[in-house]
Amino acid sequence: MIKSRLFTPGPTDVPAEVLIEMAKPIFHHRTQQFQDMLVRVNAGLKKIFLTANDVLTIPGSGTAGMEAAIACAVPRDKKVLVANSGKFGERWVKVAKVYGLNVDEVKTEWGTSITAEAVKAKLDTGAYGAVVVVYSETSTATACDLQAIAKVVAATDAILIADCITALGTLPLKTDEWGVDIVGAGSQKALMLPPGLAFLSVSPKAWACVEKITAPTFYLSLKAYRKALADNDLPYTAPVTLIRGLEVAVNMINAVGIEKVWSRCALLAKATRAAAEALGLKIFSRQPADSVTGIMYPAGVDDSFRKALVKKYGCNVAVGQDELKGKCFRVSHLGYVDPLDTIGLIAAIEYTLLDAGVKINLGAGVTAAVQVLRDWK
Amino acid sequence: MIKSRLFTPGPTDVPAEVLIEMAKPIFHHRTQQFQDMLVRVNAGLKKIFLTANDVLTIPGSGTAGMEAAIACAVPRDKKVLVANSGKFGERWVKVAKVYGLNVDEVKTEWGTSITAEAVKAKLDTGAYGAVVVVYSETSTATACDLQAIAKVVAATDAILIADCITALGTLPLKTDEWGVDIVGAGSQKALMLPPGLAFLSVSPKAWACVEKITAPTFYLSLKAYRKALADNDLPYTAPVTLIRGLEVAVNMINAVGIEKVWSRCALLAKATRAAAEALGLKIFSRQPADSVTGIMYPAGVDDSFRKALVKKYGCNVAVGQDELKGKCFRVSHLGYVDPLDTIGLIAAIEYTLLDAGVKINLGAGVTAAVQVLRDWK
Repeated sequence: MIKSRLFTPGPTDVPAEVLIEMAKPIFHHRTQQFQDMLVRVNAGLKKIFLTANDVLTIPGSGTAGMEAAIACAVPRDKKVLVANSGKFGERWVKVAKVYGLNVDEVKTEWGTSITAEAVKAKLDTGAYGAVVVVYSETSTATACDLQAIAKVVAATDAILIADCITALGTLPLKTDEWGVDIVGAGSQKALMLPPGLAFLSVSPKAWACVEKITAPTFYLSLKAYRKALADNDLPYTAPVTLIRGLEVAVNMINAVGIEKVWSRCALLAKATRAAAEALGLKIFSRQPADSVTGIMYPAGVDDSFRKALVKKYGCNVAVGQDELKGKCFRVSHLGYVDPLDTIGLIAAIEYTLLDAGVKINLGAGVTAAVQVLRDWK
Repeated sequence: MIKSRLFTPGPTDVPAEVLIEMAKPIFHHRTQQFQDMLVRVNAGLKKIFLTANDVLTIPGSGTAGMEAAIACAVPRDKKVLVANSGKFGERWVKVAKVYGLNVDEVKTEWGTSITAEAVKAKLDTGAYGAVVVVYSETSTATACDLQAIAKVVAATDAILIADCITALGTLPLKTDEWGVDIVGAGSQKALMLPPGLAFLSVSPKAWACVEKITAPTFYLSLKAYRKALADNDLPYTAPVTLIRGLEVAVNMINAVGIEKVWSRCALLAKATRAAAEALGLKIFSRQPADSVTGIMYPAGVDDSFRKALVKKYGCNVAVGQDELKGKCFRVSHLGYVDPLDTIGLIAAIEYTLLDAGVKINLGAGVTAAVQVLRDWK
């Protein structure tokens, strides 16, 4: 009778309101009912993306969305700059290479991210048609300064493709105001849905690039999704159930207001960092994201910590990846998680550290977290 | 996006496993499928009641079960002793009077309960055919010593009817070993179901009393339920959905083991009392039950505290009743609640006290709770 709790950076816990909506009988997607729903959902998504442009919904994982963006929008007559500071940056390099693009991969050390200055230096050469960055690099729990990067890119002919899969609905993101041309997102993150949907907002500047390209993809063709959306539809069979759940989730987020959602997420992250510090644990990232916090294991603790945490306290946290494998665990602040969840998780972390023989001052973590979360609004 | 959490002493939160089972399509109750289910459920309930006797399932609230016991089992040729230490003791006095029984109501001060010695002194007169006690008096968050009382009653011809509605599955209860003749329980408490079912275990000694009485009730006739159960059935239309949920809940409890469930509940109560003490709050009861904790409001705080707690933190706690109205709140430890829930609730209580202008050492409550809950097994 231990409750299962997801503190993984996707999937995240799905609210009962959304689950119940998705449990309702299916209806057909080639109907007025579906089209009306898509109109409402698109309007709601635009408030979350803070964009006046349509948001394309692509059935698939977040990767499908990012691949669609890279395949369809990156100009073929210039190079593409892909910032690689972790697993996901690395993935977008691979995608660009699959499509034979002229990729300039800029690697930065894990736990840091590419700077606006570095992007500017590259773009000043005039060699680049597109920049791909990861706003919240989930693998290293690190955020870049997307606003500053967007400002640099907006001043050029290049377009900016931002992987905002764990950032949308967690980190401040003003798509139009900042001039982010393509924002990619996924359903199983802050949008509080099961996995299965990718989302892309596309600026007129990016659409102009798309127009010039005959992309070698059918399913992931942005033009196909745009054409269908003009008829309030999807080009291929729509996942009706996920989209009706999406409508509920989007309404829940907009009822709170996206800026308040960001500040709540930031507070959960701040509380988690404060708790870690109070327990003598080190945060991995040098530019920690507020979407997910990477915490280093102290000496003598290995990744069996995660299994113990879930077994005794039902708390699922994420593994360290690649060079961080076995060295850290990652705690998500995405979506449907509130202060009481976070405080409970900190307590469970304290117990599990004690069980692993780590000397801590029991209660120090929760006290630090409780003090930060006092500012919850 | 604040999660709703029930810390009320019934209804309690229902696990997803149970909700999902109850969401399945209905089947008919006059079928082999239903009879087979009832056999399994009854076997499971006997492990929770720790009795070799059948457990009757009566569609209705816990009150229906207690009324059935009082109406059908209290000998008519003698007096019935009803212990009244709160709202529920008071209710059983009313029920006994409705049936014209010769009631001897023994009132004790709220926050205390009748002693085995007091029961013995009464029974020594030879005037009593039955004793009705409330094991966990929810209104005052107070437990009596049921084991000691049962020992006294078992030595006489009288039968013991115990309201265990909030006690079953929370406080130690060895029905047969202690000799509790009738144990009454309800579905929406530690059994982790929605309201709608009452349960009664009935000893051979109690059945002998039932045999001698023509009870003036049709729906609540114990004989009718016993006759139907002999055919693995209920006498009237069975609430199939609740009973299929019950099977899942009973299996969850028995997978943990009832004695472990008791000790976990005791630890949650101990942590809550420790937190209250650390925050300078007074526990109302002089014999606090481990099922529910009644906490007095400090000076300057009124019952708007409860509304603030649910509005900002989603935590539902119970109101003080009658003479405690506006003076205390009650926190449940029943059923599907774990240490992380309880720690989160303590944090929410701390915030709400601060919001109400009470001077507390923020974090003192959670630290005290976390230290007690370290012993969770």
